[in-house]
This record gives sequence, structure tokens and C-alpha cells, in this order.
Amino acid sequence: MPIGEFDLIAQYFAGLTPDRDDIRLGIGDDAAVVSVPPGQELVIAVDTLVAGVHFPAGTDPRAIGHKALAVNLSDLAAMGAEPAWALLALTLPEADEAWLAAFAAGFGRLARDSEIALIGGDTTRGPLSVTVTVHGRVPEGQALTRSGARPGDAIYISGGLGAAAAALASSDSPADSEARQACRARLDYPEPRLALGQALCGLASAAIDISDGLLADLGHLCRSSSAGAEIDVDAVPRHPALTQLVTGDDVAWYDWPLAGGDDYELCFTVSGEKEPKINMLTETLGIALTRIGRITAGEGLVLQHADGGGYQAHGKGYQHFAPQS
Amino acid sequence: MPIGEFDLIAQYFAGLTPDRDDIRLGIGDDAAVVSVPPGQELVIAVDTLVAGVHFPAGTDPRAIGHKALAVNLSDLAAMGAEPAWALLALTLPEADEAWLAAFAAGFGRLARDSEIALIGGDTTRGPLSVTVTVHGRVPEGQALTRSGARPGDAIYISGGLGAAAAALASSDSPADSEARQACRARLDYPEPRLALGQALCGLASAAIDISDGLLADLGHLCRSSSAGAEIDVDAVPRHPALTQLVTGDDVAWYDWPLAGGDDYELCFTVSGEKEPKINMLTETLGIALTRIGRITAGEGLVLQHADGGGYQAHGKGYQHFAPQS
Repeated sequence: MPIGEFDLIAQYFAGLTPDRDDIRLGIGDDAAVVSVPPGQELVIAVDTLVAGVHFPAGTDPRAIGHKALAVNLSDLAAMGAEPAWALLALTLPEADEAWLAAFAAGFGRLARDSEIALIGGDTTRGPLSVTVTVHGRVPEGQALTRSGARPGDAIYISGGLGAAAAALASSDSPADSEARQACRARLDYPEPRLALGQALCGLASAAIDISDGLLADLGHLCRSSSAGAEIDVDAVPRHPALTQLVTGDDVAWYDWPLAGGDDYELCFTVSGEKEPKINMLTETLGIALTRIGRITAGEGLVLQHADGGGYQAHGKGYQHFAPQS
Repeated sequence: MPIGEFDLIAQYFAGLTPDRDDIRLGIGDDAAVVSVPPGQELVIAVDTLVAGVHFPAGTDPRAIGHKALAVNLSDLAAMGAEPAWALLALTLPEADEAWLAAFAAGFGRLARDSEIALIGGDTTRGPLSVTVTVHGRVPEGQALTRSGARPGDAIYISGGLGAAAAALASSDSPADSEARQACRARLDYPEPRLALGQALCGLASAAIDISDGLLADLGHLCRSSSAGAEIDVDAVPRHPALTQLVTGDDVAWYDWPLAGGDDYELCFTVSGEKEPKINMLTETLGIALTRIGRITAGEGLVLQHADGGGYQAHGKGYQHFAPQS
């Protein structure tokens, strides 16, 4: 099978991603043609996963297919966008049919769950790498951004953090316990918070997805908002699987949730008068939403323990969140 | 400089690509936000260039930047679309500032000329590869496709073919003559036929850009249109630089223009009553548009000499255009 003929590769995806009424022309021409309804804006993101960098060589191709789409959908979630269309640029050392079928299955399952259609792509021969471009829609002017946080806004986190970092730290060992398997699943099959992102439009003042680690990403949000933040490091929600592996005496208890990355939860800010609505969201969406601190008028992040004591940082991600010079 | 922070990489592109009124949010958030005017549809394409596959290692990074955008713009041209926005996913073995500056200069110059804005991207560490996603606009229902050719339609080619193939065939040798330098420029700095593509909306019945070679790409067009084609192999326009390097006695006189690829000219079909308008286009756009044959009700491509004799194919691309089983 020649590589480079995306219409052939696309056969592996046939029927795996949804049809949509807004697609005038899908895979098989020089480009796809789509329509955007009046009153809607388009949200566009691209992310690349490289073998040996973003996933270990030998990772289940189903997981690679899932994650390549998931990390992009997570960007749409952080903008409050509803997924619409994806394009896939796949670079493969060889055309391995079993690999492609498993990759397509992982990609396709998440695509169906997210109602995002594959409308085009490219296939090239080379070192394994996957670039996905995603398109979503938001009502005009309603996209969530990183730049809207104001001093006094509360900072929230969805779900629990640190499990993917735990899996990364032990990726050479077998997942020999239920907790380790749960951590591995978080690393391989992140679930983008799409419903939450859309629900936060009009509620959150700013949002970002946690891909590089909470502190790094909250640092981005603060810089974009020209603000600082105070964080209660004990309030940061740990993923249940993490709490089975490490305790508060372990440096990883702080490092992995704060700096580990690969969580793909949302970090968002909310002004005081809108906080009651956040509590309602927890119920309607069934997602834990935990307040971990507040935006300040300062620069950079101040980390404290619940008892008010300062927190000493150890983890790898910490150089990211120093105030920018 | 860390790789992975696209806002840092984006500094190399600052001011190099145009601002546009339809961009609500550009580089620096989780995703870009753009708007599409009512009555317009969106045309989207993605293409990857891999070092050692699509360009020789050691290629001038300025040429890589140009070509990575150009091959994508050529897809927009083939759809008749007007360029709007691009995203860049760049995988680099190391952050080499001189390389990045030259790459950005090549990308940026073509972006300005094409009025396409860079609105987002991703940067990862790994083997050199460049994936660009482009977005263009067409009036609703007006996009050119591969599937509209009808028996009797004339087949046209823009410009001249074969020069990039000549450069590829001698890419190990120095470009020691003006003709060889011109061929090399065609390979490294292809010029997407954007104005022509837009002018062909409402005129051409089908169109495709010539990236894999005329016969391969015309084969795609014919299959999409459920038709065949008769080609006069002597009428196929040769690039002027090619005519200085080879003569009609040389197998390359036929092979390079017919099967060489990397030309990024447009191949399009026109019904009889619209052919006079094509001649006018040649004048208004200053681009040679040459009739090379006609669409037939058959299957596959029939190649003939001007004197009516059958043509025996030699070239590498010929397996592509056999009728699909």
C-alpha cells in the first residue's frame, strides 16, 4: 500500500467518525469544504505527538489514536467550543495494516463520542508522528480565553490531578495494581472536558487546559491575564488512583498534581457572584470542581499550605511559573 | 529556548504574516478564534513535509518554510479558494535560531504575498518535519472539485511542467547552469496558482493541482469524475528551463512533465462553450494555459503523439493512472 494516498488510508477510518450536515466535501479532494452557521465563530487548534517524546515507542496504537485527538479536543474544551471537524497528518515508518486499524479504532471511538468528523489529512513516510488539527464552534464572542481572569476571581480545577504523571514516572514498570492501571489509563486515554468547557461559556472569566502541569498552565493563564495567583497546595484535587500510590509525606504527593502534566483537566477562574453556578455545574455534569485558590493583583504564583505556611517547590515544572522578566 | 512553547517560536514569525480583520484571537491561547462571513464556505487542507522524504537534508530552511506553505496553498488554489489562515506544527531536532529565522522568513514572505495569516501552531522536539494546515474561503457552493469533469471537456494545464523533476533528478549535483538553477527554484520555491484558481470558479468543471505528476493527478481527477482522458503528450507544456536541458529524443522529455511531480501547476477541465473565456484568462492573468487533451467517457488515460501514434510510457509515475479495479 503506498503511503501518501490519504484516500486509501482513509479507508481505515470509513464509518468510524460521524457524518455531519455542515460538511459539503470530505476526504478525497484537494481540500475539504465546510460551512459555519451564522452567529458562530470557529475555534482552531493543532497539536503533534511524536513517538519517543509524547508517548513511549511501543505504545498501543489505539491509545495513540485516542490521545492524538484527545489533546486537541482538550484545547477546544478550554475555549468552550463544540467539536466539529478534524484533519489528520500521519507520518509512519511503514504502512502496517494492524497498526493503522488499531490507531483508527482509537481515534474513531473518541471522534464518535465527541461528534467530530475526520474531513481530510495527509500521510507521509517517516519517523512516527501524528499531527491533528481540530475545529470547533462557539457562539460569536463567547469563546473562553486565558486572558480574562481578574484579581479576586476564584480558581477551580476539574477532576483530579497527578495520575498521568504517576504513570509516566513508572512507564518502564508493568501496571501491576489497579491503581497503577488507572494511572496508565489516564496517561493513555485522557478524556477532554468538552461538556464542562461549553458549560463554562458565560460563567468562567478565563480557562486553560492542563497539559504541561497545573502550575505551568496556571502561570500561562496568569501572564495572559496580567495577574498572579495564590494556591492552596493541599486543596489541589488528587486523582483517586494517585491517593492509593502516594501519601502526603511523599514529595510526589505535591509534585505530580502540581507539575506533572498530561492531566487534560480544565483550570478556570470565576468571579465571586458566579460561584454558586459552579456548584450547580458539579451536580448537573457529575464532575468534581474544586476551588484551589484565587487570582491576585500580583505577579507569579504564591503556593501555600492549608495552615497558611509557605510551600517549598521541588518538581520539574517549576521554572515555568516564575514571573516573566 | 524550550521547544513546545509556540508563543516563543511565534516570535520568529512576529510581523511576518499579515493581520486580518477576521481573526478574533490569534497565537497565544489554547486555540485561535476566527470568523467566516455569511455566504462563504471554508476550504481546509493539510500537508506534511518530512526531511529526507520531501526535501533533501540540508535544504535551505528558507525554502522549506516557503514550500511547506506553498504546497498547501496549491491545494487551496485547486479548490478556487482565497487564502485566510494557517497553522504550523513544527517538529525540530533542536531549537536552532538561525534555522528558525530563515524558515520563518521563507514562510512569512509567501504568507504576505498570499494574504494568509499564521494563527496558531505547535512545536515539538523530534525528527525534522513540518505540517501546515491552511484555511481558505469560497462563495457558498462555488468550490472547484475533482469530480465535475464531463466527456468532451477540454483539459488544460497552467504554466509549464517538468522543471522540478529535473531538479530532483540532479539534486546531488551543483546547479551549474542558469537552466539548472531555474529548475532548482521551481523545486524549492513553487508558486501556488491562487489567482488562477479563484478565476476558474464558475469556469472550470473540475480542477486538481499537480503534485504527484500530471498523469497521476489527472488520473485522480478522472476517477473522481468517473471518466477517462485522451492526452496529446506533445502538447503538454514543458517548463522553459526543461527545454534547455533535454530534447524530444530524451526519455526525460516525456517522463519529467508527465510523471515528475512537484510542479504545483493546475490541471483543469472546461466545457466547450466556456473555452473562449479561458483564452481571455491567459491574457488577464499573464499565465500560459495550454489545452492538452479532452475528457472521454472511457476509463483511464490514453496517451497519444500529435501525429496520432500511441505513446509508450516509461516513467515512474505510470502505475498510478491505471484504471482502478
